[in-house]
Amino acid sequence: MTPERARAARARITPHMRRTPLLSSPFLDEIAGRRLWVKPECLQHTGSFKYRGAYAAISALPQDLRARGIIAFSSGNHAQGIALAARQHGTTAVVIMPSDAPQIKADNTRALGAEVVLYERATQDRDAIGAALAQERGLTLIKPFDEPEVIAGQASVGYEIAEQALENDIDFADVITPIGGGGLAAGICLALADTAPGLRLRTAEPEGFDDAARSLKAGEIKRNTRLSGGICDAIVTPQPGALTFPILRDHAGAGMVVSEEACLRAIALAYERLKIVIEPGGAVALAAALFHGDDIKTDHVIVVASGGNIDRAIFQRALTTYG
Amino acid sequence: MTPERARAARARITPHMRRTPLLSSPFLDEIAGRRLWVKPECLQHTGSFKYRGAYAAISALPQDLRARGIIAFSSGNHAQGIALAARQHGTTAVVIMPSDAPQIKADNTRALGAEVVLYERATQDRDAIGAALAQERGLTLIKPFDEPEVIAGQASVGYEIAEQALENDIDFADVITPIGGGGLAAGICLALADTAPGLRLRTAEPEGFDDAARSLKAGEIKRNTRLSGGICDAIVTPQPGALTFPILRDHAGAGMVVSEEACLRAIALAYERLKIVIEPGGAVALAAALFHGDDIKTDHVIVVASGGNIDRAIFQRALTTYG
Repeated sequence: MTPERARAARARITPHMRRTPLLSSPFLDEIAGRRLWVKPECLQHTGSFKYRGAYAAISALPQDLRARGIIAFSSGNHAQGIALAARQHGTTAVVIMPSDAPQIKADNTRALGAEVVLYERATQDRDAIGAALAQERGLTLIKPFDEPEVIAGQASVGYEIAEQALENDIDFADVITPIGGGGLAAGICLALADTAPGLRLRTAEPEGFDDAARSLKAGEIKRNTRLSGGICDAIVTPQPGALTFPILRDHAGAGMVVSEEACLRAIALAYERLKIVIEPGGAVALAAALFHGDDIKTDHVIVVASGGNIDRAIFQRALTTYG
Repeated sequence: MTPERARAARARITPHMRRTPLLSSPFLDEIAGRRLWVKPECLQHTGSFKYRGAYAAISALPQDLRARGIIAFSSGNHAQGIALAARQHGTTAVVIMPSDAPQIKADNTRALGAEVVLYERATQDRDAIGAALAQERGLTLIKPFDEPEVIAGQASVGYEIAEQALENDIDFADVITPIGGGGLAAGICLALADTAPGLRLRTAEPEGFDDAARSLKAGEIKRNTRLSGGICDAIVTPQPGALTFPILRDHAGAGMVVSEEACLRAIALAYERLKIVIEPGGAVALAAALFHGDDIKTDHVIVVASGGNIDRAIFQRALTTYG
């Protein structure tokens, strides 16, 4: 991956995406023990940064391929990003989701213009269904993170952070981001290496699903032993990606790991002090900055709040318990 | 009030305030029946647009007056705006609040560095307490809306809307804003008249407290018959201001009036589709655009979500009932 590719992706998506602001609150600074800055990608189109990578990848396709349509596997934020970006390109998207995905996610994805194909986790092979559909209709698969143009698109978050750091006189800072497969984290690494040498990326993830932290420590890819059962499911993947991990290994600092309770507290604080809605997986970096300050050495810390598509019951629980 | 004054205020506050983005969602467009754009001033410092006017007014004071300190009457958003802006100017602020104001509001105002003086609504005269303190300490009173530099500061919202309309190819639109005393609405009128003749301001307010709509219709100031008892208390004032009303009369379209239920629905939709937290008084303009589309003629409508400092119980009620 070259910076040129990330810059080119940014140029394509800039007219379409939202440049999210950098938020802060003296109340959060006090808890964090330093200046804390929040990049609210929950305010991005479709409620998460995923739209950036989806748009970048679709816009990079040759016109004839793009016209035949897109296919993606996702029950979450990638699905909505793909659906909207495909519609904006005047093409179609098929999104393959497990039949037990929340109804609202399928409904939202359909409302954005995509065709949703459901499969039974227990009895059906997702990949086989996808391959058959792709073959039959000539669709192009866009993977959620281990895809060069997706990584290049997510890098736009990093370029914006670099610019906003400059605007706020921040020369040195840890930049903490939630990590699943690593598309966002790797993209930000590329952008910071390209334009902001004083900013260093660090990853954050939930306890029990700390494949990135262990992989970074070991210098090689480590797997999670379980893949579901937490409130941060949206960012849980089996392991860092084959494309994303080498970028992280070369650029990222030590990974951070937070409890689910810390995520819920961070959600309640983001509601109270920043007036934004963030999902558990999108809150891990904020939780790390707020509650693991001992592990941070810089005077400023910048965190990405990567998405806001939270289940209402969990949001209400966060507010009731920690608001 | 001249545009020059509004422009000068904007130049003073721009380095300090947040330029809030313009948000949208295809789901909200569908409900509204047109393109709907939301200016989320809940993301402004201290959670409301009031910071802009407070900063503008304090920054306009001669250095010697400013150094002696500021005084304000407010239990709400103006209090927090004054507290933060005073601290940023290295001066002190005294905020006079009724003793039955929510504890959290007094705490937040104190945490931002202001001295909070409580009075008993039933037995004490707020104005007398304020006048005595101002006299004794040489403090300068900054009123919440009927104050030229405050209006000039709020105009910055209108200048940003004009620029953002241009960026999004919006030539004609109604710009709906919540109205209490009219500082924000009058400021936006001045900015739009100065830079965006195709944009027209309209006011929105809750049923039962529709002094602005009645005043605009009559061409003269009309009063509310009651002054409390609704969930939109933050924007309820006895009547439009002596300075703000003439500006509104010259520039604004017909006022809009919405039910409390519509506000709660708008709060739930802003949570779900925009990932922002807005307070009832801050939601009236969004509610007007979403649910009173028959009264709007433009293809685009821009609404100001003026603040996010909502009582948690009311927010949860909105989500539980309408989420």
